Order: sequence, then C-alpha cells, then structure tokens
Amino acid sequence: MIDLKTAVKILALYKLIKNNDWLIRDLAWEIGVREKILVEAVEELSKNYLITIDESHIIWNPADIPSMLNPWGWELVHEPILGSTQEAARGLGPWSIVVAEYMLMGRGRHGKTWKTGLGGLWITFKISTNSETAALMPIIVPVILTRILRTSLDINARIKWPNDIVVNGRKLAGILIEAEAFRNKMIIYIGIGLNVNNEPPIEKAVSIKQIRGMTPRNKILSMMIGWISRAKKLAEEPEKLREQYLEYLDTLNKVVTAKTREGIVQGLAVDVNDLGYLVLETENGRKILDPTITYEVRY
Amino acid sequence: MIDLKTAVKILALYKLIKNNDWLIRDLAWEIGVREKILVEAVEELSKNYLITIDESHIIWNPADIPSMLNPWGWELVHEPILGSTQEAARGLGPWSIVVAEYMLMGRGRHGKTWKTGLGGLWITFKISTNSETAALMPIIVPVILTRILRTSLDINARIKWPNDIVVNGRKLAGILIEAEAFRNKMIIYIGIGLNVNNEPPIEKAVSIKQIRGMTPRNKILSMMIGWISRAKKLAEEPEKLREQYLEYLDTLNKVVTAKTREGIVQGLAVDVNDLGYLVLETENGRKILDPTITYEVRY
Repeated sequence: MIDLKTAVKILALYKLIKNNDWLIRDLAWEIGVREKILVEAVEELSKNYLITIDESHIIWNPADIPSMLNPWGWELVHEPILGSTQEAARGLGPWSIVVAEYMLMGRGRHGKTWKTGLGGLWITFKISTNSETAALMPIIVPVILTRILRTSLDINARIKWPNDIVVNGRKLAGILIEAEAFRNKMIIYIGIGLNVNNEPPIEKAVSIKQIRGMTPRNKILSMMIGWISRAKKLAEEPEKLREQYLEYLDTLNKVVTAKTREGIVQGLAVDVNDLGYLVLETENGRKILDPTITYEVRY
Repeated sequence: MIDLKTAVKILALYKLIKNNDWLIRDLAWEIGVREKILVEAVEELSKNYLITIDESHIIWNPADIPSMLNPWGWELVHEPILGSTQEAARGLGPWSIVVAEYMLMGRGRHGKTWKTGLGGLWITFKISTNSETAALMPIIVPVILTRILRTSLDINARIKWPNDIVVNGRKLAGILIEAEAFRNKMIIYIGIGLNVNNEPPIEKAVSIKQIRGMTPRNKILSMMIGWISRAKKLAEEPEKLREQYLEYLDTLNKVVTAKTREGIVQGLAVDVNDLGYLVLETENGRKILDPTITYEVRY
C-alpha cells in the first residue's frame, strides 16, 4: 500500500517540522524504525533538503523550514502532506499561507495535475483585496516571482505566457490563481509551485538546485511574502507592471501556437494588454488570447 | 509514490485521533481535499473502524480509539503510522503501550513480516518484571489473550503452539515476546497483533469482525491492559498457568510437523513443560521443541 522509504521520509519530515534537531536514536524510536533505516531515508532526504547527519544528530537547517518563518500579519500553515494547498487554504482566513512538502493531488491550470517532489516550494497565499488588484494578479505574481529569481538568486528567469516561469525554455515555476468574489472584496488564492531543491518532475523542467545548487527555501519564501503583501501598492501603477511583464516575457516576438477552447491559433506574439491577454499577429489579423480559455502554449 | 486513497485515509486518521468529531467540510479543508474525496475515503474507513458519517459530521466512536484510554500507571502512545510498535517502544520507559493503526514493517516471530491492515489492534506493551515472570511470559500472554476472547467476546479461541491464537484453525492473533536483561530486572516487549475489524491479511487468518461483527477495540485493549498489569501475580502460580495453557492448546494430541533449526521433526504433541516447550512423541522417542528455534508448526 505504502512504499516504505517514502513513508519513512515523510514521517521524518513530520517530526523534523516539530523539532529540527534530533538525536538519530531518538528519531528512530519516535518513528519506530531501526537507526539504519532512518539514516538511509535521511540520506535521501538530504539530496532535497538542507538536512545534515552527523555522528549522532539529524539537523534540518531552519532557513529551509517554512514554519520557522513568522511573517507579520500572516498565518502560516506548514504540513508534510496535503491533498493540495489550494484546497487547504479554503479553510483559512485571508492573509494565510499554506506550504506542503508533498501534495497528493496538486493542481495546475485547467485541471492539470501538478507533480510535487520533496524539496520544492508548494504554496498557496490566500489574500483579500480590491477588484482592481485582483484583476492584475495574473501580471503581478509572475512579475514578482521573476524579479525575486533574477535579483536575489541571479537566475535568468523569464515569463512564459501566461504565467509559467522558465529558464532557457525549461519550466522552473508554475502559478495558479483562483478567486472568490464577495460583495465588496475579492479573495484570491495564489498557488505557486517552484522547483527549488526537488528533482524536476518533468523532462522540460529545471530546478534551482540544478542551476545554482542547494538553496535555503526561506530566503525565497520570505521575499514572496514581502512582495505579495505589497500587491495592492503594485497594482496602483498598472502601466509600470505591464512594462515589467513585457520586459520579462519570453513569449514576446516568438511565433506562438496556442491550443484554445476555440481551436488552434498561430501567430507572432506582439503585445500583452492591461489584463495580461496575449496579442498575436495572425494571417487573419490581430487575435487576442484569453488565458482562461488557453490550454497550451508552444513556441 | 503514495497511493491517494490510502494516504487520505491515514491523514483522516491523524486528524480523528486528535479530535474524534469533525464537520466534513472542516476535515476536508484540514487535509486539503474536496469533500467528495474525503467522504469516499471515510466510507472505506468505516468498514474497518467504528466511524460514522452523517449529513455534516464524521465521528469516530471513542470506544474504538485507543488514545481515549487513560490506563492508570501506563503511558499510552497511539500513532497512525509507525515502522513497528516494538521499535517505537524502545524509546519509552517500562509500563508503556504503543498502538499503531498501520505498521510499515511489522515484525512477527523469527523475523517474519507481520502485515497490518487498518482496523486491527497492533500493540506493544513494554513492562519491567522479575526473571521468573519473564520466563513465563510465553505462557502468560497467550493464556490472557485466549481468556479475554473466550470470556468476554464468546469466541472459541485456542492456542496454536507456541503463541498464535486460532479459531477453527484460522489465525486470529500473533504474539511476539522480546526481552532485555538488566542486572536485577527484565524489560519485556509484548507485541500483540489481533485481527479485530481489519480484513485478515492472509488466507488462513480470520478477524473478530468476521466472527461477531464490528467490535469496539477499547473493550479488548482495556482487558489486555488489566491482565498484563497482573502478570507478576499470575506468574506466582505457574502450575495453574500451565494447566490453563494446556486446556486452551489446540496443538495438543495432534500429529505435528515442525520446522526447526535442526531440521523437520514430526510427532504427537503430548505435553508442554514449565517453560512452554512442546513435548512430542516421535518414532525415536520423546523430543522437546524449543519455540525460539522452531520456525513453523503444522498439524
């Protein structure tokens, strides 16, 4: 039913989230396995987490443990396993962050499954905001993410329309934005999947580990929190956002083939409008692609 | 890596151990799955646990939740998943009880694996006692278990030498006794696996559910605790214990084939000595079987 090694790894993460420094012997007892089996599992974990084993201790670097962050004004939930962070966030109030080490049924755009390996950042930010900011979220989030990756990690990240982050054409991150509308406000669920220290789940993907080695996740996570806290402020200058989006947009000036609800569309990507819709020059004139009905983009 | 339905079932058990009454919606959020998926998983759980779903609630009957017991003088640890309860008990002091809903690597006698389905009782009792009581444990524990099953549950349980419990030849429970010797005392690990409401793991096994329907586990567990607390008292009358063991012994007066470290032995089972060794009448005279070097017994 359950593969032994994966189970021991996840049980170890459960305990290490609660206490990041264990005597090997104590942790083995706690999980109910022999030390040898625990050490083998933790050696595997150490390929994807900043976890070290010395002679008698197993230590998880706090800078790699999301629950060690106490972001002011946010509630942060950090679980070893969840169905999906988007679903779990539904039970929390706005200004919550849900981080899972492993998702049983991670979702991507258009109901696609999102595969989560141990060591990545699989997060949902739940915020409350006005409708202007909500409408700009599909632009704000990829811009924020790209900026963090470029500025702080020196990674040549670019945006693949509508909101994947790619490096040399390989996918580094995916974004899934969902919204609930109320009378006078919007609740936004910002799902971000970033390949940090995990093994990239698909062939055309890449992880930060592959680009610049093992990286503490909290550095990235705390910057995300900071920028998302300022989303409303960013939305006050939509023209500046659009400029930045265009500057980062890998898709621009490429001949794009898109699978949409209305069929296949092909054309040169020439612009993105205020709402983040992609403008294509096709044989039959201009065509504007709505991301919500565009399933696949290739170029 | 992890089968979705099993994972959701175990995540639900994690939460239900902490709180035995949940709004369906809240529990789905907590696990991060849609209500439909949770309800499907809990419907499966309800085949092996006294868990009910009504319109809005999921409720686990406290009489089926080991952690609801507060046995006086004992420390009780109840975990959804462990490697094995025997290993987990090593980290606790004597007079501890470890119960797991699922064991990743349950052990039986002679290093055989012990398969644990959801809904059974998989327990280790760790006690400290004198060497006289320790020596009698292989007799005391099967006698206790058989007595409980016969007296309180009206099940025609018998002992299959050395310490399986059978009903009409089908295995209902297994016992694994391990010991650590110190200067003036013995630490005993009494591992008991009892098929209660689980699906029996092997063909020649049976569960209490099959014999008399779904049964609250705490009734059985609290009787086990009571009797094991009195093990030293029972050991003061070894002759009475031996009599009772012989009365329950299914193996007696059967022609037995045993696989031992020294080869195959065949003979009529005529007696059990003070230490629980089986006495066989073979073609070449009497032969005494030591359970510690007897791997398999058939009759």
